[in-house]
Amino acid sequence: MDKILRIDTGAQGGPRAKEEPVGAYAGMGGRALTSTLVYKEVPPLCHALGAENKLVIAPGLLSGTTGAMSGRLSIGAKSPLTGGIKEANAGGQPAQVLARLGYAAIVLEGKPETDDLYKIFINKDGVKIEKDNSLKMLPNYDLIERMKKEYGDQIACISIGTAGEMKMCAASIACTDPELRPTRHAGRGGLGAVMGSKGIKVIVLDDTGMKMRSPKDPEKFKEANKKFVAGLRGHAVTGQGLPAYGTNILTNILNEAGGYPTYNFKQGRFDGAHKISGETQAETETARGGLATHGCHRGCVIRCSGIYNDKDGHFLTKQPEYETVWAHGGNCGICDLDDIAMMDFLDDNYGLDTIEMGVTIGVAMDAGLIKFGDSKGAIDLMHQVGKGTPLGRILGSGAAVAGKVFGVERVPVVKNQALPAYDPRAVQGIGVTYATSPMGADHTAGYAVATNILKVGGDVDPLKPEGQVELSRNLQIATAAIDSTGMCLFIAFALLDQPETFQAMLDMINAFYGLNLTGDDVTALGKQILKTERAFNTQAGFTAQHDRLPRFFTTQPVAPHNVTFGVKDEELDQVFNW
Amino acid sequence: MDKILRIDTGAQGGPRAKEEPVGAYAGMGGRALTSTLVYKEVPPLCHALGAENKLVIAPGLLSGTTGAMSGRLSIGAKSPLTGGIKEANAGGQPAQVLARLGYAAIVLEGKPETDDLYKIFINKDGVKIEKDNSLKMLPNYDLIERMKKEYGDQIACISIGTAGEMKMCAASIACTDPELRPTRHAGRGGLGAVMGSKGIKVIVLDDTGMKMRSPKDPEKFKEANKKFVAGLRGHAVTGQGLPAYGTNILTNILNEAGGYPTYNFKQGRFDGAHKISGETQAETETARGGLATHGCHRGCVIRCSGIYNDKDGHFLTKQPEYETVWAHGGNCGICDLDDIAMMDFLDDNYGLDTIEMGVTIGVAMDAGLIKFGDSKGAIDLMHQVGKGTPLGRILGSGAAVAGKVFGVERVPVVKNQALPAYDPRAVQGIGVTYATSPMGADHTAGYAVATNILKVGGDVDPLKPEGQVELSRNLQIATAAIDSTGMCLFIAFALLDQPETFQAMLDMINAFYGLNLTGDDVTALGKQILKTERAFNTQAGFTAQHDRLPRFFTTQPVAPHNVTFGVKDEELDQVFNW
Repeated sequence: MDKILRIDTGAQGGPRAKEEPVGAYAGMGGRALTSTLVYKEVPPLCHALGAENKLVIAPGLLSGTTGAMSGRLSIGAKSPLTGGIKEANAGGQPAQVLARLGYAAIVLEGKPETDDLYKIFINKDGVKIEKDNSLKMLPNYDLIERMKKEYGDQIACISIGTAGEMKMCAASIACTDPELRPTRHAGRGGLGAVMGSKGIKVIVLDDTGMKMRSPKDPEKFKEANKKFVAGLRGHAVTGQGLPAYGTNILTNILNEAGGYPTYNFKQGRFDGAHKISGETQAETETARGGLATHGCHRGCVIRCSGIYNDKDGHFLTKQPEYETVWAHGGNCGICDLDDIAMMDFLDDNYGLDTIEMGVTIGVAMDAGLIKFGDSKGAIDLMHQVGKGTPLGRILGSGAAVAGKVFGVERVPVVKNQALPAYDPRAVQGIGVTYATSPMGADHTAGYAVATNILKVGGDVDPLKPEGQVELSRNLQIATAAIDSTGMCLFIAFALLDQPETFQAMLDMINAFYGLNLTGDDVTALGKQILKTERAFNTQAGFTAQHDRLPRFFTTQPVAPHNVTFGVKDEELDQVFNW
Repeated sequence: MDKILRIDTGAQGGPRAKEEPVGAYAGMGGRALTSTLVYKEVPPLCHALGAENKLVIAPGLLSGTTGAMSGRLSIGAKSPLTGGIKEANAGGQPAQVLARLGYAAIVLEGKPETDDLYKIFINKDGVKIEKDNSLKMLPNYDLIERMKKEYGDQIACISIGTAGEMKMCAASIACTDPELRPTRHAGRGGLGAVMGSKGIKVIVLDDTGMKMRSPKDPEKFKEANKKFVAGLRGHAVTGQGLPAYGTNILTNILNEAGGYPTYNFKQGRFDGAHKISGETQAETETARGGLATHGCHRGCVIRCSGIYNDKDGHFLTKQPEYETVWAHGGNCGICDLDDIAMMDFLDDNYGLDTIEMGVTIGVAMDAGLIKFGDSKGAIDLMHQVGKGTPLGRILGSGAAVAGKVFGVERVPVVKNQALPAYDPRAVQGIGVTYATSPMGADHTAGYAVATNILKVGGDVDPLKPEGQVELSRNLQIATAAIDSTGMCLFIAFALLDQPETFQAMLDMINAFYGLNLTGDDVTALGKQILKTERAFNTQAGFTAQHDRLPRFFTTQPVAPHNVTFGVKDEELDQVFNW
């Protein structure tokens, strides 16, 4: 991980690769690296689909090691959806493989003058870039089958589907899982469109012949990793809840808490929730010969994913996440798990952010395009997006654009990015994160649901404004740091409750790099990243007024608790005053 | 003009009218009134289509008098297109009639819960509001025919077409001309969508039985008006150019100057310009039995409009303005005057901003939807907008949304509003206005073309950055003041060159109201309006970064002069530091 691969996609005759030492970005991984590079090298007022934007793909500090949970890949750029800085991260295999190939980052730069499509193959022998217009408009699953035929099955792929090629603001970037399926996505912020604007369809990685990255102090590293894994296994969330039911265990919990946004955020509880809960989902998966427990990358010990088969027992999609089941499910009044799984597959296949798509379809339902609960209609809309019909183009541009195009007032977005699966009136801590994160509305940017609802890392009443700013602030800082390690964010459940597990993670980094970082250093790193991201956004034209929820959250109470979002604007403005 | 008519469109059982004294808004007219009321009463972060937004319709200080040129109507609200404050003004009859009926403003407030459509009839006996769903989706021309049958031909109408009902961001508000045709539009910023969101299709005004507004000092007023008219008739632009050829006299002038944006702002000169010039247009109009000279409201002495008949001599549309001929013409590589006139008619009929639509179609051409120059294809797109097909919905949302939906980088907008007919690289003064006006890109907000190109009010080299900030600043201040008088902005040509004509206008206001205003008061008024508008925008989240042209204007030179926009960001930030 001592070099950066820069690919100038605007070079005459096609993209040109250049390797350079990691230089000023030494010691950075994941989100720290993507956000710093974007801040330093991308003009904040540039067009997100123009030559001046850069797509940065960076494994984390511990990716490619034997450390557990270290398979997250950060992808950053100026977002075409939000207009601000963006880091979206994904699981799957590429982070590990890219790190073992020695790259701290791949940076796609410039802009091609033709509309040719290229594939990039990277292995121990170097980088090969080839024009391949036969890949045009291939959805992700077909594309990966083609790559397997071409390069064998010892590969990991980073790719875009049809949505990315069409430069849709809801386009994701897919990463393949251990079974070489394009199921793990850097979903948010339309980064697939940036990759599409660079004319790059797929990056194929093969680390055959490369070694596992080795720590400075192998013994200490091994020891720390062991403690770390034990800590994860010992915590109720990471050791029991997530492995058994996956993230979708949250459906019943949030519905019970009255914070499950239903019918485009009109109410906080959904009649059909039990039909699409994690419990029902796990049962269905097991009964059909799928898997209720499965890791999205090698080295995962939480294994919160699964395999969802159709009624005939054939693979349909990976286990849809809670946010996906919510977005395409309760948010749209839909409670048919098979139809939701089909939409999850279509999102993965066309290369779309499941949250943005589900919320956008909810907005379309509010506009009267189809009725709430019409799952077949929703599936049809998904195909229109993937194929790029005019209506599909609208929906593929995300909820904010769809709301504008159809003249809808109830559009749940912050900084143009759709709100995820937690109503900010009934889970006010996550409301603070939605409003203030430099990423736009993003539950993963500071998951206050943990403390508001799951009572992890303390207990802050979800229905009241008190304490939410501090909670969100601390979680946003911690998250920015964790997103730089390559570690899955879910380790935070154990880290928040168990100081020894947090220490074990620190020990892993210290042993690997020969450092003596403390908790304060982690906090300082998180703060530095947020400061960098906010500086970019300020220069891109963001103000305190962009750190606000849509007004209906403060004016219209949500049932069953009949509360509005109560954190005042002046308090929101204190989140980054530390 | 001592009362305000407020209509609560959200009242139970349908819109409810309430008259109140003008109160705190006394002494204000036109833009001063609309912007002050919006600033004081509309929450800057509200949804533009929500209950909290207000549509303010205000004649100017001298509207309804015998004063020449006083027929402009200001309409204001928070704009669904820009997200900022908006004043768009239009000619036609309604300003005069509304003023004579005694109203300083009509304010549409609240939001209906049903989708019923209402018409409002106002005459000397008061206000009548009726539900009339038979008007749904009527285009403006059919609507006005219906109103004539119902209310006779002594009326003036303010209405929306199908675009406003569909709440499109490019929707205009139509005002009828002396022949009771819906040809004069408050075009910019999507105010038609705001009217549509209030469920009001048309406001029918009848001033039968009302008197001309009478001045405090009738003799002085008459005398001043006489001087004012003589001044207008004596100036080359207002006395000769505009009457003879209308605004489209500018096609040849701008093309010659290399500032005529062609093929979506790719070059500054258009091969086909002579085919669509004002000279050709006037000749065509005269030959077909139309009119090359015609006033858009009674009391106009410039008479820059006209009547454009089709090949068979039947009325097709009013004389398309220069900006319309450019937007649907050269900007799209189209040089068929009849097809351009047809699009002008369709804009008026469906109720759309011609500039926003032409620029949007140019962006769609850049996206490859149809070819540059394909005028029949462009007409088809216009119909799709008017009918609200999905593709039409995209285009009706304006250039910024269309650019986002189709992934186009070259999108000529500021604050999401399309740039008008002057390339800011070759006419740098107007570039300063585009960038900094609180309205978004708007040539009328500070028409530096006058001094850059026409050499009115001085001479500032259009190709250089020097002097442009001061020029735009002074013009923006003067314009804000003129927009408050109800006077047509075109009087500015004479005012800038002839101090005695400026004094005559001042004398008219003073004689009418018994005041002693000086030039300094006019400047102070203009500054106060701009300050109010900028304060609203700041609270809506606008920063200096929003006072910028799209980056391609500063990075890509435009032929034939091969210049880029040279006014620096720091200079732009000085426009409002007076």
